[in-house]
This record gives sequence, C-alpha cells and structure tokens, in this order.
Amino acid sequence: MRPSGRAPDEMRAITITPNFTRHAEGSVLIAFGDTKVLVTASIEEKVPPFLRGKGEGWVTAEYGMLPRATHTRGAREAAKGKQSGRTQEIQRLIGRSLRAVTDLKLLGERQIVLDCDVIQADGGTRTAAISGAWVALRLAVDKLMASGKLTTDPILHKVAAVSCGMYQGQAVLDLDYPEDSNAEADANFVLLDDGKIAEAQATAEGACYDEESLLRLLRLARIGCTQIFAAQEAAVSGATGR
Amino acid sequence: MRPSGRAPDEMRAITITPNFTRHAEGSVLIAFGDTKVLVTASIEEKVPPFLRGKGEGWVTAEYGMLPRATHTRGAREAAKGKQSGRTQEIQRLIGRSLRAVTDLKLLGERQIVLDCDVIQADGGTRTAAISGAWVALRLAVDKLMASGKLTTDPILHKVAAVSCGMYQGQAVLDLDYPEDSNAEADANFVLLDDGKIAEAQATAEGACYDEESLLRLLRLARIGCTQIFAAQEAAVSGATGR
Amino acid sequence: MRPSGRAPDEMRAITITPNFTRHAEGSVLIAFGDTKVLVTASIEEKVPPFLRGKGEGWVTAEYGMLPRATHTRGAREAAKGKQSGRTQEIQRLIGRSLRAVTDLKLLGERQIVLDCDVIQADGGTRTAAISGAWVALRLAVDKLMASGKLTTDPILHKVAAVSCGMYQGQAVLDLDYPEDSNAEADANFVLLDDGKIAEAQATAEGACYDEESLLRLLRLARIGCTQIFAAQEAAVSGATGR
Amino acid sequence: MRPSGRAPDEMRAITITPNFTRHAEGSVLIAFGDTKVLVTASIEEKVPPFLRGKGEGWVTAEYGMLPRATHTRGAREAAKGKQSGRTQEIQRLIGRSLRAVTDLKLLGERQIVLDCDVIQADGGTRTAAISGAWVALRLAVDKLMASGKLTTDPILHKVAAVSCGMYQGQAVLDLDYPEDSNAEADANFVLLDDGKIAEAQATAEGACYDEESLLRLLRLARIGCTQIFAAQEAAVSGATGR
Amino acid sequence: MRPSGRAPDEMRAITITPNFTRHAEGSVLIAFGDTKVLVTASIEEKVPPFLRGKGEGWVTAEYGMLPRATHTRGAREAAKGKQSGRTQEIQRLIGRSLRAVTDLKLLGERQIVLDCDVIQADGGTRTAAISGAWVALRLAVDKLMASGKLTTDPILHKVAAVSCGMYQGQAVLDLDYPEDSNAEADANFVLLDDGKIAEAQATAEGACYDEESLLRLLRLARIGCTQIFAAQEAAVSGATGR
Amino acid sequence: MRPSGRAPDEMRAITITPNFTRHAEGSVLIAFGDTKVLVTASIEEKVPPFLRGKGEGWVTAEYGMLPRATHTRGAREAAKGKQSGRTQEIQRLIGRSLRAVTDLKLLGERQIVLDCDVIQADGGTRTAAISGAWVALRLAVDKLMASGKLTTDPILHKVAAVSCGMYQGQAVLDLDYPEDSNAEADANFVLLDDGKIAEAQATAEGACYDEESLLRLLRLARIGCTQIFAAQEAAVSGATGR
Repeated sequence: MRPSGRAPDEMRAITITPNFTRHAEGSVLIAFGDTKVLVTASIEEKVPPFLRGKGEGWVTAEYGMLPRATHTRGAREAAKGKQSGRTQEIQRLIGRSLRAVTDLKLLGERQIVLDCDVIQADGGTRTAAISGAWVALRLAVDKLMASGKLTTDPILHKVAAVSCGMYQGQAVLDLDYPEDSNAEADANFVLLDDGKIAEAQATAEGACYDEESLLRLLRLARIGCTQIFAAQEAAVSGATGR
Repeated sequence: MRPSGRAPDEMRAITITPNFTRHAEGSVLIAFGDTKVLVTASIEEKVPPFLRGKGEGWVTAEYGMLPRATHTRGAREAAKGKQSGRTQEIQRLIGRSLRAVTDLKLLGERQIVLDCDVIQADGGTRTAAISGAWVALRLAVDKLMASGKLTTDPILHKVAAVSCGMYQGQAVLDLDYPEDSNAEADANFVLLDDGKIAEAQATAEGACYDEESLLRLLRLARIGCTQIFAAQEAAVSGATGR
Repeated sequence: MRPSGRAPDEMRAITITPNFTRHAEGSVLIAFGDTKVLVTASIEEKVPPFLRGKGEGWVTAEYGMLPRATHTRGAREAAKGKQSGRTQEIQRLIGRSLRAVTDLKLLGERQIVLDCDVIQADGGTRTAAISGAWVALRLAVDKLMASGKLTTDPILHKVAAVSCGMYQGQAVLDLDYPEDSNAEADANFVLLDDGKIAEAQATAEGACYDEESLLRLLRLARIGCTQIFAAQEAAVSGATGR
Repeated sequence: MRPSGRAPDEMRAITITPNFTRHAEGSVLIAFGDTKVLVTASIEEKVPPFLRGKGEGWVTAEYGMLPRATHTRGAREAAKGKQSGRTQEIQRLIGRSLRAVTDLKLLGERQIVLDCDVIQADGGTRTAAISGAWVALRLAVDKLMASGKLTTDPILHKVAAVSCGMYQGQAVLDLDYPEDSNAEADANFVLLDDGKIAEAQATAEGACYDEESLLRLLRLARIGCTQIFAAQEAAVSGATGR
Repeated sequence: MRPSGRAPDEMRAITITPNFTRHAEGSVLIAFGDTKVLVTASIEEKVPPFLRGKGEGWVTAEYGMLPRATHTRGAREAAKGKQSGRTQEIQRLIGRSLRAVTDLKLLGERQIVLDCDVIQADGGTRTAAISGAWVALRLAVDKLMASGKLTTDPILHKVAAVSCGMYQGQAVLDLDYPEDSNAEADANFVLLDDGKIAEAQATAEGACYDEESLLRLLRLARIGCTQIFAAQEAAVSGATGR
Repeated sequence: MRPSGRAPDEMRAITITPNFTRHAEGSVLIAFGDTKVLVTASIEEKVPPFLRGKGEGWVTAEYGMLPRATHTRGAREAAKGKQSGRTQEIQRLIGRSLRAVTDLKLLGERQIVLDCDVIQADGGTRTAAISGAWVALRLAVDKLMASGKLTTDPILHKVAAVSCGMYQGQAVLDLDYPEDSNAEADANFVLLDDGKIAEAQATAEGACYDEESLLRLLRLARIGCTQIFAAQEAAVSGATGR
C-alpha cells in the first residue's frame, strides 16, 4: 500500500502551466502532485568557449531549490558559496537529457539555458524539471522559428523523465517524498517519445536489486512518460494555439 | 506622463496570496504589478551564536532573484559562488525592517528566517519583499501562538515598504522597471502602521535632490503604504479567518 | 548629555592630511575625532567592461577596516575570503556619492579607484571616508589637469557626509562609537556644497522615528557638512597652493 | 573493430597491487590497462555530524585526478578552489557503491574514507576506483578485525564496477579512452558477487538506445565483473595470506 | 653605486612610533625609509584548536598590503577572495620569527595576533613588519605584566629582521624597491640580540650565488639588526618610560 | 643516534624512475627513502599573461599531497576549496628553483608546468620534488629538442635540493619524518652542479642557531646533492639512452 493510496503504476496529477513568467523566451510551471518546478528557457546569442566558431549551439541547465521548498529549511547555496554535489549532478543530467533531443548544429551558434527552480518539493524534482524543461525549450525554439532566426526545427523528439523505485518490495511509479526517503531502490529514467532511452539511473538505497526489477521499473517509467508526453503536447498546444 | 499611464500617486495592483507553498510556517506570493516575490517564513528553534543563552530571538532575511526573473538572464549567485553586494544590501534591509516591528524578547530564543525569492522582476522587488515578509511572519507567529509556544504576540506593528522617485522632474509612487532605470532619484521608505519611519533611503541617480523633494517622496510613500497595510490585513484575514 | 560632552550640533575635530602616502595620485588621511581613514585615489587608464568604448569614465570605491581598528579584533576579510555585506554596502555608497559630483563624460575613458582603509574606528567611518575621498579625488584630478590629460574639470561640486542620530531622545551630530552603538536611530547624509542631497539613509535601530526627527537630523547634517567643506577646501589649498 | 583490437567482451588487463603505500590502513594500486588509480582506505574513529551518537558507521569516498593523468593537462582542482561537478558525481557514486556492501551498524561508530586518486587515465577511472576501493576497504576492515576492534565482518559482499558502451553500433566491454570519447552510449554498472545490481547508469552520448541494448550492456558488465571479483580475491589473498 | 646613494652597509632611516593607534594592546608604526608598516598586537584569551587545554599560548601574524601602498594599484585581497601565496608566506615567516623569542608556556593559554599592514611600500616590508611586530608584542606583554596576568616575562630576546642582496655584483644592506627589483640575489635574515639566527632565506633572482656571498650578506644583516635593536629599545623606553 | 641508524652525513636511498606515467612530456617517480613524489612536466604552447608577446618562456610548479600520503589523513585541498599556505610556499620554491637553471629566453614563448604530487611522505617532500622536477623538465626539454622546436638547450645546469637540520644538537643530512618533527632547526638548500646556491632557507624550530651551524648544514647539503646529481644523470641516461 502506497502512503498516497495510489496504485503501483499510477502517476500523480501532472499540471503544466506555460508562460508562467513573462520575460523568458520559454517559461513553465510544472507540477507532479505537490512537487512544483519553475522552468525558464533563455536564449543567448553566444556559446560557451569550447564551441566558439564551430557553427554549433548548446543547451544547458541550472537547477536550484528554494530554501524552504522542503519540509525543513535548507541552507541557500548562494549564501554557502557553492552548489552541492547533488545540485551539480542534477543540472548535468537535465542538460544532457535536453541535448539528447536537440540537433545542436541546426540550433546554430546560440545557447539555450534552462533554469529549473524548485518552488515546492515532494519527490521527483529532477524528473519534473526535465519534463518541464522540454516545454520551455519548445516554446523558446518556437519563438526563434516564428522570428525567422531558425527555419528548420532543431528539436527532434519529446523527452520526459519520471522516477520509479522498489518500495516495500514492490515496483512503484513516480515516488513522492515519503516513498523516496524509504525506497530500497530508486531509479530515474529519461525517455524519448519514440521509446528510446536517453538515460537510465538505478541506485540501490537499502537493498541491491536484480535485472528483473530493473526491467519492471523501466516498464513503469514507460507508462508514466506516456502521460507526461500527452501533458507536454497539451501545454504547448494551449500556449501556442498549434 | 508615466510609461504605465498611472497617476503620480498611483500604486500598481497589490496582490497577496497567502499559503502559496505548503511546507513553510508562513508563505506568501506578493505582487506589485508584474513584480512577484515568493516569501516564506521558517521557524527555527535556535538562534545565531551571538544570541545564545540570552533569552532573545532573532528575525533575519535572505533574498534571491531567479536568474530569469529579469529581462535578460542574470548569472545564478549559487553558481558564481557569492552573493552580490546588492543582494546583501537588500537582505540586510529586509531583516532590519521586520525586526523593527518585532519584540525579540517576546519571541523567545528562536529564529524566524524570511526567504524572499523574486520570481519576476519589474522594479520594487525589495519593497514588495518587505511588505510580503510581514504577512509571512504574521502567519508563522500565528502558528506559534495557536500551538501555545507563544502567549504574547511579539509583533508590535504592521510594516510595509514602497519605492518612490523623481522621474522626469516629478515625484512618482511605486516605480516600475522603465521608471526605475531612468529615475533621477530613487527612494525606498519602510513605514509602520502608526506613521513612524523604520528606514528611509533616498539616492540620487542622475541629479541630486533637495529637501522639498525628499518630503514629497515621503508623502507619496505614506499613500502607498496605507494601501499595502490594507492588503496585508485582508490577506491575513483571508488566510486565518481572523 | 553626550558621552563626549559635545553639544548636540557639535562635530568632532576634523583633520585632513593631504599627500599622506606618496605613490597614489591622490592621498589623504582624514580624521573625525578618533576615527581615522586613509583614502587613496588611483587613476587607471581603463574602464570596467560595461563602459568600454563609450567614451565615459568611472569612479568607484573599495572600503576596508584594519583588523584592529576596532575595540576588539575583527577577522581579516582577506583571510575569511570574502567581504562582508556591511563592507559592500559601504563601498557602494562611497562610489555613488563621488559619482554624484563627477561628470563621467568629462572624465574620459579612465577610472579612478578610491581605496578607503580605516586605520582607527570610533564611529562614522563611512562618512569620514566619503569626505576624505573627495579630497583624494580632487588631488588626482588636479594631476590629470596639470598634465594636460584633462582640460575641463569633471568635478562639479564638493561632496561631504556626516552621520547623525537620535541618542537618548535627542538629535545629535557626528556620532562617535559610544553613541552609535546606543542610538535609537542612525542616519547618514551625503550633501553637496550647493545644499542638494546626494544620499539620505536613516535607519531605526531601537525605535522608529517620525518625519520631524528626520528633518532635524538633516538640519544637523547641514551644519556638519558646512564645516567639512571648509576643511576640504583648506586641505586642497594647502596641498596644491591654490 | 575496437581501436585496441580487443574482442567486444574482452576486458583490459586487470592488475591490483595491494599495500602500494604504507601509512593507510588499506592501500591499493589498481590498473585496468593504462588506467591507474591509487586507492587508500583511512579509518577514522569518528563519524559525520548526522550520525553522531547513533551507533552506526559511515563509508565515504573522495576522488581526484592528478593534473597530468590525462592527454592534456587539466587544471588542479585545489588551485581552482573547487571540485568539478564530474568529480563530485564520481565520488558520490563510489561512496554509495561501497556502502551497498557494508553493514554500517556492524562497522560501529567509525568512518572509513576511500581516497581514489587517478595517476593515469585511459577511460573507466570511476569503475577502476570502485573495484580497487573494495580491496582497500577489505584490507582496512581486516586490520580492525585482527586488532579485535571488530568481531563480526561488516563487509557483506564483494562489489566491482565496469563500464560498457555502444561503440560503432556494437556493445563493448570496458571502454578505453578512444572508445569512451566516441561512444554513442556509455554505461557504468556496479555489481555484487551474488549477481545483484548496486547501481546502473546508462547515458546516451550521441544516440539514444533501446531496452535490448541496455540488457546487452548489462550482460557484458557481468562478464567483466566476474573477472574483477577474481582479481580482488587474488589481491586480498596475496596481501594477507588468507 | 646604489640608487639612493647609500653606502653598501648603510641602513635607511629607522623610525618607530609606538602607540600609533589606540585600541590595540600594542601598536606601532615602523618605517625603514619610505617603507611604512602599521603593526598591532591583539591579546585574545583563547588559543587555536590544536593547543586547547595544553596550558600553552600562541603568537601568530597576519600580513596585508593596502592596495595603493605600491607604485601601481594592486587588487585588494579581500575583494579577490583569497590571500596570495606571497602574503601567506610572509605572515607565516612573521609568526615563526616572533615565536622564536617567546616562551609559549610562560605566555599561558592565550594568543597574541600581530597584524602587519603595509601603508606604503618601498622594499623590505616583511623585515620592517618583523622588527615592528617585536615592539608591538613587547608593549602588549608589558600590559599583561602590569595587570598581573603574567608574572614572568615570556619574551626571551629581541628579534629583528633586515633584507640584504647582491646588487650589481655587490653585497648591500636593506634593499629599497629599485634595488630589490633588480637584485641578483635577495636575502632576509631574522636575528636575535644574542647573535643567533632565527631564520635565513637567500634566494637567487638572476644569478646563483656562492657561500662567500651568503656569509657577506649575513654580516651585513648583523650590522643592520644592531641598529634595529637600538631603535626597538628606544621606542619601548619612550612608550613605557622604562 | 639517528632514529634510522644512518650516519649524520648519510642520505636515504635515492631512486628515480623516469617515464612513470605515459601522457606527460616528462614524468618521474622520485623516492628519498619512503618519501615518494610523482613529478610530471607538461609543455604548454602559451605563457602567463604577464609574459605574452615578450618572446620569453616560463617554468612553474604546482605541489599537492595525496590525503593519505601521511600518517594520519589530511583534508583534501580541492575539497576544502583552497591550497594551504604551506602548499603555496612549496610550489613557489619549486618553480623558482627550476627557473634558476633555465634560460627562459632560449625556452621561447612556451610554459612548462611541473606537477609534484606526493604519493607517500616521510620528510623532505619539497626537496625530493625539486630534485625530481629537474629530471622531468630535462625529459620534456629533450622532446622539444628532438622535435626541432628547440635547437639550443635552455637548461644551463642540474639543480637538486636536500634538507638538513640540527637534531639533538648534531647536524644531520636528509631528515626523515621522525627527525623533521623533532629538529631544533630545519634547512633546505637548493644547489647547482657548479656549487652555486639557488636557495638557502634555514629555520629555527626549537632553538635558534649560529653561523657555524648554518655552514655545517650547507656542507652536508653539498654531500647530499652530489649524490642526487649522480642519480639524476643516471635516470636521464637510462631514460633516453644518452
């Protein structure tokens, strides 16, 4: 029995509010249940040093958690003077995931920065961030295309992510905080809308797992991502009237 | 003529949404027009080292701006590894302003941290933060009193803040970004609901100003704060049913 | 009764020693009683990145306090690895104050850095720093003019600063440390020699204040600054034989 | 055809030199071909703050790469003043992997720190580090048991790790640098000697992959880890005469 | 011929002004010609962690250079966020030199911090700092003895330091900046008033030197330190009336 | 009697293993008894900013100690976020010592970085580092000459270093850790193969020393360096077949 009463393969409610803020080229508030992440996409007409002059673009991400997004207040990373290893691990994952569906040559020599800031946390912040970042990226790229700066769409696929885990011996989808903090194993899958895998990470927390469990978790992730793809589609259609 | 078409003594719409997030003891989203600040109040049952064992509490604040709260993306302070002078100046001002209306002895040996994070910026983020922080503090203290941890209310007054400035030779209230970035002088007033002043800061940006202008700006601030006090009252009543 | 026995509107002795060190283009030791600040002005034939190629100059300041300038030793900021919020707030104020009297276009594409280092502290270090910085800036600009690098004087006015405060219910001028640490309200005014105000900052420390008090403090500041302008004039005349 | 001429399921030569340095409680130089990592295990009779007084121990890891372990010199992290996101990600993985086979309650209130320093890099440094760290940990725990500080062995299993990837469309085992830098997908598996999985991480670098590929990579990892377990066994036997 | 016209064994004028600032337990402005260093001695009734509870005291030093102490402005270390290697090397040397003449057991469980801040630099700042620090330490210890906190004098000897170098093939005493920046070899000697050596450091800058030169430099240092000991004696007598 | 049973003028065994790692242009593992330092020389075809465009090269060094090179584990400098004063002092000394034997004009506008990482420490790590760095530099320069990038050898001399000290009243050569931590005085000499001195540093640790002792320590250093020069020669010959 899950603490929330959900079925093992049941996602929390997915809500995506496009254009949540007004300055960014793309902006979205995504919620997986009580987990709420604000993602903005900023287009910069320059690339990092290692790409200069190569005619290629870059997509990258930064991640942050507001100090009181969590049950007890966490220290502000800006005040501590450094980003934690966890933060860096997550923002590297988000960036890789979005680059996996972007043709950087088609993007041209510009950079899109995805800022993912957790307003409220209840498990699964990194997967909500990836799923929301795709929408923000989509909205920003739509602006580049509408303005004529791009003529060919550099976004090749949808990408979404969801967490799964072994909780009290059972494989369950979309862990909330009470599950996440007690799971025996904890996995994050980043999937494409053609069924391919961009990233799979499965970590034993309390008990190591077997191949069969890994596959079961992956199958749950496919169920969850199908729903996220639909929510992404609806959000983009609503935002742009496409 | 103001860019927004407002009258010189006209505030932007003030919106205060209490309980915007669920984990913090007090939480509020405050908007002055397009400026939106999320403020949470966190109660910690400990005090900073310099107060330990003195039987007194502390109220402090931290301030941050999401990277794309602004027209162009600003670098994330957590990634740069330090808070800017501007950030520190603002968070010190917020903390002082809230301490000005709190009896720290009555609060007892505990600390309340006010995290003010700017979701969207259009001028006046520090004054919106102070005005919203009072509501978050009020909600948090109400919880302490409801739980019996406090029996006497340590909050002595309402406090609110608003910016004013000399724009094209005229004193105007509640500067938005187009005004703020072109004002000849720029002032922030932190006022109490009994008419007293907690803080006055008036800075020449392009042209030094005279005593008469300072007084005119202060009078505008009184008009603005009166409206903010009403909005604070309504938000607290709505949130708590008082 | 003030601890020092001074009248409410009585400044401490003002001493300005120009050319206190030999390498800087401008250099001065300024004392307000026991508060002693060494200010140097350094001319650099380059400007910060945001001004490059705009044909305009910049005036900026840095502030520091020697570890044992105070009653008890404070940690060295260079050893701690960062400047405190207080330090940054002060150096931003000093820079703004001097820019308020400088025509940056006339200065040309060069920067003048004012280093203000407190040798001994007894209250009012920031106001002594601003008042001394004007003399150091004046001496440095005089060298630019003597050498023919400048033909029109970019310094438009004198600028001086002084602190005032409400101490035991009375408005007093030029707070020393015993007053400063016990004042109910504490204000710093930065004034021009034509009576205009460059910056007013008045902060409640123990009790909020009213409009009448604010005006009374401003009037005291005018008295103090008049004496500082005279001391600045004498110091510059003595240094340059003008 | 692999650049090294190896068969797809062929590991590089595994060499484990126990007791490579003399001060650490456990020490090993592990080589996977030209990748060489020095691992030391240090026993500290204290635990991190979050575990104090809980009667439990901790196993953690730190990772570093000598500046010229690589083809071109990388900046020294100590000189840059911070560890990269990659470094932190790797050391967190190493720590988790070793904790997955350690009963922290049996270890008692002490910490074992595994320092993994890459002397020479040719792909697979993190997997060599994990595999070597197990031997260093084993040697250190053997000392605790020999001295009577521990009576029950807290190490529950062997753990080893190996990288695999899709290289030119083919699943290959134990990527060296030329393969690693050109792989379409890159996976690291951390396996136990009972066949369970402690961690699986599979990342698309150039092309997303399907479920079948993920399984094929896992099967290769099983082949590789079997050989590593044997080398670990031999190294420990040689070192201790068990 | 030396740029200053001095004879090879001729010191610059030594001036020591005791009690230059008022808050520190010991304070001195020392000048070797145009090199001016302010040294304060602060007594702290606590010791660093490694000495706690051992009944022993500690003497340590910090060194800084005001940004415009030099011909061209140097970046402020507090603003850069770290002390340079040169700064750390110098402050370690000053601390060691003063500990060489202090009986730390007699000092008791307290620390004396010597802050050496260079107001104006013209070569030899570290040797002036050491020589001045002895006077500041002497004055602070005198206060401890006068107050009865110490009954036995923990200062065993005078210590002084001077730089020497090979300049245009000739051994010269007390290098000023024009000599220092062109010397073939550069030495600093820290000597006791009984003729013993606390520290000798001789560095080839342009040309390596032989044993005979090393001895010649040491002999010059003895000449210089004899004069510094006399100036220290006079300063202490003048300050304390001993 | 020395703890190791060595005669006062007896070096520990010197072992130099050239080409210890494969990527660096020069690489060596040097051991003085149980002290083992890995040194790599990296050629970079660029120079630090202060040398750009001057047609001159640069030789510099960085030094690190693996956390468990020592008896008890030391904190990793990369994790602490800064290099200690000791580390910076040592790496500055190594750089100076190697520059003392290099004609930087002949080297041309390129930089050679010597990374000295202590694998195992037993006293004398800095002197082993200098002695090994010469071999690494020699091997790297040999590659520049073999490739025709250099036609005239910029290395003018061999340079070696050794520590000496007063231990229980006796001058002894090449201190190991038990001696180093109990010596009354501790000296490091950097000598050239023509007998000249590049650097002499002699520090009183427990008792100040006299001129005669300084000379005796220098004479021991000459004995030690003669043996190091021979080992350097043999290592280079062995490595290159010269």
